[in-house]
Amino acid sequence: MERRISVITLGYTDFERSRRFYEALGWTGTSPDDEVVFIQAGPMVLALWDRKLMAEDGEVSDTGGWGGITLSQNVGSPGEVDEILASAERAGGTIARAGGRTEWGGYNGVFHDPDGHPWEIAHNPGWRLNPDGSITLP
Amino acid sequence: MERRISVITLGYTDFERSRRFYEALGWTGTSPDDEVVFIQAGPMVLALWDRKLMAEDGEVSDTGGWGGITLSQNVGSPGEVDEILASAERAGGTIARAGGRTEWGGYNGVFHDPDGHPWEIAHNPGWRLNPDGSITLP
Repeated sequence: MERRISVITLGYTDFERSRRFYEALGWTGTSPDDEVVFIQAGPMVLALWDRKLMAEDGEVSDTGGWGGITLSQNVGSPGEVDEILASAERAGGTIARAGGRTEWGGYNGVFHDPDGHPWEIAHNPGWRLNPDGSITLP
Repeated sequence: MERRISVITLGYTDFERSRRFYEALGWTGTSPDDEVVFIQAGPMVLALWDRKLMAEDGEVSDTGGWGGITLSQNVGSPGEVDEILASAERAGGTIARAGGRTEWGGYNGVFHDPDGHPWEIAHNPGWRLNPDGSITLP
């Protein structure tokens, strides 16, 4: 199995709320059916889809809440971390943890999208963030 | 906020089991501390981390189970879908749905990793899969 991920699908309970939130952050996509949204995110795709249908499709039972997956975006400076957190709050997200220094020598903060999916926004001086947005581990 | 994702972190309950599963699939990474594993996955990073610590770090309460996020890997043919599903089963995963034709004209199947995180393996003839593994939406 090649080491790459093509699509991350985030489940929503309210299509318009989820779509508007990501659009307000600049994550504009297309929807063939007003049910799923496909957003080109660099070399991959972020999809938004009805959480109930996702559970059926993925053969999982859904008892609600968080499921042990967090997304992160790494950026070039602590200031950018704070800017994105502020944008997420303006867009209707929740600041779960404001930006601050980390134990590992970086700076990060966390917002939750309207469905509670957590996003860590991080500046990690130990990892190379390339001009195209890709990450290269040391 | 740029449209890109740097890191996806999957929570585990058993470090060695999770690490071995992904290694058996060829997803070899490095661990600075026998607690977190960082795996270079194309232009991004897949991380494995203790689910309890993730919940604290992400400011979420964890009631267990699935949380409305599914990962997908798109491949070049239905045969590759079946091969990867078989590999995942040999590695200790569970085939949640065997490969089969989809309503949208493709072919897919689903496995769950040892922590229950669902992976869809898909062949989608309507999306361009580039030689470097990136996806380009129509």
